[in-house]
Amino acid sequence: MFNPFFKNRGPFSVRDILNFLNIKTESVESNIELKDIKDLYGSNNYDITFLHSKKYRELAKKTKASFCITTESLKNELPASCIPIIVENVLVSVSKITSMFYPDAINDDFDDSVIDINQTNFKDKVISGKNVLIGKNVSLGKNCKIGHNVIIEKNVSIGDNCSIGSNTIIRNSLISNNVKILDNCVIGKHGFGFFPNKNKNLRYPHIGIVIIEENCEIGCSSTIDRGSMSNTVIGKNTYLDNQIHIAHNVKIGENSIIAGQVGIAGSSIIGSNVRIGGQAGISGHIKVGNNVEIGGGSGVIRNIPNNTKVMGYPAKNIREFLRDNK
Amino acid sequence: MFNPFFKNRGPFSVRDILNFLNIKTESVESNIELKDIKDLYGSNNYDITFLHSKKYRELAKKTKASFCITTESLKNELPASCIPIIVENVLVSVSKITSMFYPDAINDDFDDSVIDINQTNFKDKVISGKNVLIGKNVSLGKNCKIGHNVIIEKNVSIGDNCSIGSNTIIRNSLISNNVKILDNCVIGKHGFGFFPNKNKNLRYPHIGIVIIEENCEIGCSSTIDRGSMSNTVIGKNTYLDNQIHIAHNVKIGENSIIAGQVGIAGSSIIGSNVRIGGQAGISGHIKVGNNVEIGGGSGVIRNIPNNTKVMGYPAKNIREFLRDNK
Amino acid sequence: MFNPFFKNRGPFSVRDILNFLNIKTESVESNIELKDIKDLYGSNNYDITFLHSKKYRELAKKTKASFCITTESLKNELPASCIPIIVENVLVSVSKITSMFYPDAINDDFDDSVIDINQTNFKDKVISGKNVLIGKNVSLGKNCKIGHNVIIEKNVSIGDNCSIGSNTIIRNSLISNNVKILDNCVIGKHGFGFFPNKNKNLRYPHIGIVIIEENCEIGCSSTIDRGSMSNTVIGKNTYLDNQIHIAHNVKIGENSIIAGQVGIAGSSIIGSNVRIGGQAGISGHIKVGNNVEIGGGSGVIRNIPNNTKVMGYPAKNIREFLRDNK
Repeated sequence: MFNPFFKNRGPFSVRDILNFLNIKTESVESNIELKDIKDLYGSNNYDITFLHSKKYRELAKKTKASFCITTESLKNELPASCIPIIVENVLVSVSKITSMFYPDAINDDFDDSVIDINQTNFKDKVISGKNVLIGKNVSLGKNCKIGHNVIIEKNVSIGDNCSIGSNTIIRNSLISNNVKILDNCVIGKHGFGFFPNKNKNLRYPHIGIVIIEENCEIGCSSTIDRGSMSNTVIGKNTYLDNQIHIAHNVKIGENSIIAGQVGIAGSSIIGSNVRIGGQAGISGHIKVGNNVEIGGGSGVIRNIPNNTKVMGYPAKNIREFLRDNK
Repeated sequence: MFNPFFKNRGPFSVRDILNFLNIKTESVESNIELKDIKDLYGSNNYDITFLHSKKYRELAKKTKASFCITTESLKNELPASCIPIIVENVLVSVSKITSMFYPDAINDDFDDSVIDINQTNFKDKVISGKNVLIGKNVSLGKNCKIGHNVIIEKNVSIGDNCSIGSNTIIRNSLISNNVKILDNCVIGKHGFGFFPNKNKNLRYPHIGIVIIEENCEIGCSSTIDRGSMSNTVIGKNTYLDNQIHIAHNVKIGENSIIAGQVGIAGSSIIGSNVRIGGQAGISGHIKVGNNVEIGGGSGVIRNIPNNTKVMGYPAKNIREFLRDNK
Repeated sequence: MFNPFFKNRGPFSVRDILNFLNIKTESVESNIELKDIKDLYGSNNYDITFLHSKKYRELAKKTKASFCITTESLKNELPASCIPIIVENVLVSVSKITSMFYPDAINDDFDDSVIDINQTNFKDKVISGKNVLIGKNVSLGKNCKIGHNVIIEKNVSIGDNCSIGSNTIIRNSLISNNVKILDNCVIGKHGFGFFPNKNKNLRYPHIGIVIIEENCEIGCSSTIDRGSMSNTVIGKNTYLDNQIHIAHNVKIGENSIIAGQVGIAGSSIIGSNVRIGGQAGISGHIKVGNNVEIGGGSGVIRNIPNNTKVMGYPAKNIREFLRDNK
């Protein structure tokens, strides 16, 4: 995952990590320093990874990670080069380790390091409204227009010829050229991801970012959350209407058109040239192909192949929907 | 109802109240002073209450109120200690009387008494962003973070370790410790409650407040309206995602998880350990039990018992839903 | 269409228009000056109009326009007084011509001409919050309350006794007396209207405005887009709850009540005395009659006659819906 923003506080020794998890595993060589925590596929030597489901067995066999958080019943899926660390709840442990490496990626308190744009070098470079605030590690391209009361918190890159609407808040995002984000949006906040826990849920870090490719338009009062372990991506020339919610890790292809009040739940992947009617909802972890049309109000709870038109709740082939609802 | 905020302008004499309603009832002892208007159950001696439906017959029999706004056909349900005042439209009359006692609870014009937080004693107590405004009768706990452009209007109490996102507006709310409210929310506005009336609807007062218990999280761009005659309550450790609307008088239990774009209509009561999928809607005056799962996109129009999983529109048992939609 | 705001940069000669479209039509008298571009019905002599579908054949026969953008196959529907200009894609050409006459109506970059209300004559006329910004060509009536951080961009007229909530943004709108717009709304932005085009969509101008008639209330975080070639209208004493989206060209009648999170897609026409339950959606180009009730969560995809109650997705007669879903 391309992630230029969240600072990795590692390396940490295996001993430190085990201590943090309250695990005693004397058999493990504990002075080894680990550089990062990554998924099975992305890990390299001196990384720690995790395996929490049989679904990922094939990936597990090929992982290059040196250590893997897993369970007693899954540990035999790992190659000899990868030392298992047995825990009760893999995802909770992963969350804790990720928070060691990326402590800044858990909470989204407001950025108190911002300053007025008139105190920055951007003041002569862009056209900006009143009361615009700019955080650390922000870059703005040429010929941008930044509306009133906009807050660009830390870790944002905006390309050339972009227009940001008034009252919009952006953080942890890469925005390409010729993008318009209209008024009142919130872009780059952490997703709705946490481990439910009686009396006090446990939030896990969101080290992904939001990537909005060139020529996109994002309608008023929309929210696009950044990813947890991967990025949230809006492909080029995709247009979103007002009041849309794009959850963490979602990827949308190019040239798609998404009407008002649509919601796309976490980790779903939408193809290119897709049209989604108003108020439709896409469940999490769904794959929608290319050249798909989803009727307004639909509820998509299963994958949709390329070149299909669907409608209904649950969404089905549109001919079937219309025949059933004459 | 616990309501520390709206000032009761009473007592008013029975005569004043009858005059205000344009009622002549000479048979009534009109010098008696009435302290408050409350529902049948909550009323005490020297309060006025109301009875507008046979549904509340059992409660009516036991009311301690001295007077009751009601109709000719319902007046015999009242005990001898409670004097009926007969009107044509009970709820409109109640609305008018409530507006006598609580004139500040009808309109939600912006609070023009707010001042910049840097002119208050909070400036050294909390970490606050730019352009933060604080109204009268506000308290803030220790270790809070208050984002940019936040407006905390009058009658708000916020506990310790809370984080309020930028651009959020709060009024008439009690917020416990360790609560996070993300960006762009509106908390504590009056509900969508009024008497429809040709050419000019008649708004009734909303004297309830919003109570958010400890460890809750409220997602971006959500709206939580305060109650009319009771409070709107979010139970502890309940998490709301983005773009959620919670209407007036709604109560949600503890440890519940509510995904993006869900809407809960007025006066519904949701149990504890409830999970609601994205874009689901709950009708008004519905009761959802504990340990209930409601699938994304569902429309709940009937009560749901404890320990049930439902999905669909209208929502039904999830097995039935999946069987019907293979 | 009544449109006091967008400045017409015409007249333009037929030659200029043809050049702009890259059309060579030597047979046309090209020195004639055209004053405006309008629909078939609204056009007068020296206007240019357009005909893109057989549906409008009857209107075409009676148009008073001097020129008409159309296709080879439709040109014979026009009267002798109207000279056809043949193009490949009528709507794209219309969009281009409209952008000649109304170049300010395409993009909605923030209004950088606004100034603080305390630098205007309104400062003593209305009660306003902190950080209120006012654009050019704005009028405010008596006894208005304008909340904190409100941005009234150019081309807005607000009547007497209006209340505008904090953080709300308004442009290109006519707002009558006694209207309340609550917090965080965006009123008058261009609609979600453009011609999809690989790699770079083509936005067309929105020269309509938003008209909100007297005694209306608009809930928090709602968005009402202005029209493209006609206005978006909210009829008098109509109340909208929170998080509602009204798309471009929509017209809603009087005394209607629309609950939270409802969405109405482009160009639909809703009657008077209509009640729409929470989260219902109305497709585009739909006609909903007077005295209609639409149940919460419904998806309306067909016209609804007067005096009807409907529910469901797709919406059908409510008795049928309840019978089918016992």
